[in-house]
Formats: sequence, structure tokens, C-alpha cells
Amino acid sequence: MKHIEIISVGNELLIGKTLNTNAHWLARRATTLGVTVKRVTVVGDDVNEISQATKEALNRDLRLIIVTGGLGPTYDDKTLDGIANALNRKLKVSEEALKLVKEKHEAYSRAGNLEKQELTPPRMKMARLPEGSKPLRNPIGTAPGVRIDARGKTLIALPGVPDEMKAIFEESIEPLLRKEADGLAFVEASIFADGIMESSLAPLIDIVTHDNPRIYVKSHPKGEEGNPHLEIHFSTASKNTRTAKEQLERAMSEISELIKKNGGEVRTEE
Amino acid sequence: MKHIEIISVGNELLIGKTLNTNAHWLARRATTLGVTVKRVTVVGDDVNEISQATKEALNRDLRLIIVTGGLGPTYDDKTLDGIANALNRKLKVSEEALKLVKEKHEAYSRAGNLEKQELTPPRMKMARLPEGSKPLRNPIGTAPGVRIDARGKTLIALPGVPDEMKAIFEESIEPLLRKEADGLAFVEASIFADGIMESSLAPLIDIVTHDNPRIYVKSHPKGEEGNPHLEIHFSTASKNTRTAKEQLERAMSEISELIKKNGGEVRTEE
Repeated sequence: MKHIEIISVGNELLIGKTLNTNAHWLARRATTLGVTVKRVTVVGDDVNEISQATKEALNRDLRLIIVTGGLGPTYDDKTLDGIANALNRKLKVSEEALKLVKEKHEAYSRAGNLEKQELTPPRMKMARLPEGSKPLRNPIGTAPGVRIDARGKTLIALPGVPDEMKAIFEESIEPLLRKEADGLAFVEASIFADGIMESSLAPLIDIVTHDNPRIYVKSHPKGEEGNPHLEIHFSTASKNTRTAKEQLERAMSEISELIKKNGGEVRTEE
Repeated sequence: MKHIEIISVGNELLIGKTLNTNAHWLARRATTLGVTVKRVTVVGDDVNEISQATKEALNRDLRLIIVTGGLGPTYDDKTLDGIANALNRKLKVSEEALKLVKEKHEAYSRAGNLEKQELTPPRMKMARLPEGSKPLRNPIGTAPGVRIDARGKTLIALPGVPDEMKAIFEESIEPLLRKEADGLAFVEASIFADGIMESSLAPLIDIVTHDNPRIYVKSHPKGEEGNPHLEIHFSTASKNTRTAKEQLERAMSEISELIKKNGGEVRTEE
């Protein structure tokens, strides 16, 4: 199974105005579906930056790229410009996308609580996609998502408004990732240790990792160094969830015994 | 003034277990200090991935790279391996770093509430830095930060534990960024608009951006499309804060007038 990457577009992320909850949500969903996220790249609302990040991702060994943000009607929504540039394709009004945008605006006009819904240039902009794109229906907003298949890879662009991103993901991307995952499922669990420093835990993790090569074990310090409190996170991806859970249990009880022998305490909850 | 980039290291970020609050905090602080963050890259605990991301950043036109995460004592703390690899340098015990690590462990031993503090291999690991590194004192934890000057750029590595990252940043990195910013300050403000769609706001932003070329104006949809609520964010970086604030005020009142003319309402608070 090949990997996916996420590209987040938006100056608000680079000035630290907005926390990148979109990438977090996408990474969580993809992981839970059994797909591995290998990299997240955040760039600003700049055609060259978006194009460059997209080109770099296209040159890596991966299956799917999800780009979020920058699909809206304003001048600085430049994601499709950047992607078109990276793929050396032109932006062109997609009849299918235009139909989706028109339907939305007719619905808003019927609702009657908004200004007259003309198909102004900013609205037309949301239907201008890189040649060869397929628009993805936006169940709760106007800007459609975009799917482009190129060079054996699939490029997906989703709006940055979290609810719209999630809605398009669930309708159009989740089935795609489920197929990529090919039956793999992600399984994870944590235990919590007190009274042992991370540097004393390190050789114990080495033992458990050696004995359980399919389990990834990682410690996360949560207390202060004079008063250590550690989360130890166990995870694996497997086609057989029951076996995977048994493997996790085995690794968790092995490390629990080792921690106790070394004077630490183990809890199953934080 | 040149740009900076952030590289965040950690599988927990790529599986969507942990929200990348470190990059958000760093981006905010750097921006407030007048420095521009151009890219954030998130990679996993993998020497090749870290090395590759570092090499790519070193090849871009920037002044400073801040890497967070992966400096701890465990086997999968691989950041310094990756950086050494990218710079084609060897990892070597730094006497200065060893002194910092020893001092910490002697202090913990004196405090007496922990296991015997031997300088075990996992603890020695925190003093093994790429050749030519300068360790940065960690005021609240063991793993020192690292500074490497190479190819006209400065590479900083900070621990992933948020409090340790922040403490080293404030002691050792903030003065560095302040110098880079060379007196530039970031100024920003927001207004909120109701009853106007983002696609109707778009041409108004174009007018204001044209009239106020030094001000960056960006709309952030916050409501639903049938009931639009928009944040409009204004920002600029300037050596003269007072002039910058006046420029912001001018742009904000210009767009407020335009929104009202187009049937929308403007508020100064959300």
C-alpha cells in the first residue's frame, strides 16, 4: 500500500492565526481507514509556493495528495492556479462544476435571504478547474472539491472551511481511501507510567520493540522531568484486527512488567 | 529580510494523534517578532524523511530553519541523525552538551525522588550532536536544543515537549529572530461581516487591496453559506507601528463602507 500526503494552503496557518485542525482531522481519518500519511506541507496563498509543493509531492513515491484550502471565490484563493501550474495544465470552466455552482446559487436565491445571485466572476472562478478535473459535489457549500488523476497519482483539492472539507471527504474521498487501504485497519492503545524517566524507559521500549516487531511503541513525556509522567502509545496496521489487538495487548503487558521491575507505576488511564 | 521554515518531526502528528500546536506557537511568535514563516513541513520519526526535509529546506532561499521534536533519549528520537545526514556531518558527543545533561541528572539525583541517575546510553544520546553544533540550554528539561550554522543558514533543533520548546525558544531563539526582523513589527486586526456572501465580498476586497497595497486582506468564512458570517483579517509588517496601524484603519473603514453599500452589516467583534 502506498502513502498519501497532505498539503495545507493558507497564510493564516503560517502567521499562526489558525491552528491546522484540517490536517489533523484528515490525518486521523486517513490513518483510521488504514492509510499511511507520510508528510504534511503547509504553504501560503501564493501560486508559486502551491505549485512548488505540489510538484515536489508529485515527484515522490505516493498514491494520493490531498490539498486543502484556497478554493473559494476571492483573489487570494490560488490553489487551483498552483495545481494547474504544477501539472502544466490550463484552468478552464468545467461545465459540470458550473452546473454545481449554479444549482447552489439558485437554491440560495430561492431561499431569498441573500443578495441577488448573479453568476459574477468570483462565482465563475469556483468553476474554473485545471483541464481534466472532475468536480466533487460540496454538500454544504458552493466551491466544489476537485479530483485530478495524473501520472499514476490522484490529486484531491478540498475547501479550507472545515465543515465543507469534511462533508466532501466523507462523500467522495473516504470510499477512495478505503479502497487504497485494501482491508488494513489501524489499531492503537496507550498506557501511562509514573515514577520512571523517559531515559530509563528507553531501553525497555527497545526490548519490547525487538520482541514485537510489528508494533510501533512511542513514549510521550507529559509531566515535568523531576516528576515524570509518560504516555506510552502502541499502534499497528493489520488486516486482522483481532490478531493486531492481541499483539498490542502482549506488548503492553510486557512493558508494564518491565516498568514495575524498574520501580515505576503503570496505569491504563491518564 | 529572509524567511524561516519550520520542520515538525513526529509520527504522532502524521497519525492525527497530536494536533501540531508547536508549529502554531512558533509561527505565531516568529510572525509577532516580525519574521515571515514561509513553510511548515511535518515528517515522521524516520532518519531518511527528516534528512530529506532538511536538505530540501537548506536548498531553498531562507535564513533559518527550526526543527521541533525527536531530541529525546529513545531510539525513535531521530532528528539529530537526520540533520547530521542532511549536512553530511557525523554525530559526536559534545562536551558542552554532556556537561548540560550531567548537571541536570545530578540535580535530579540530589532531589532524590527518582531512580539512580547514571549516565546511561539513552542519556548520553542527548549529548551526541552533529559536529560543529552549539547546544542550547534547556531551562526545564534534559535534552538541550541545538544550533548549527551551515551554508549561510542557521538550523535550530528544539525538543517536541511544548514547555521545553517554548523555554529554549524564549531564552535562545527569540533574540536571534528579533535581530533577523531588524525592527519590523507585525500588525493585524479583524472585522466581521454579516449578510454578505464571500463571493460578493471578493470584488470589494480587490478594491481595498488595490487602494492599500501594503495591507494583506483575507476573508475567512465562519457561518454557513445560506447565512454567511465572515471574518475579514487585515495585516501588514512595518518598521513604523503607528503608520501601519493607520494604514490598517484606513483599509478597514474603506471595506466597511463598501460592505454596507452592498447590503451587509459590519461588526468589530465576533
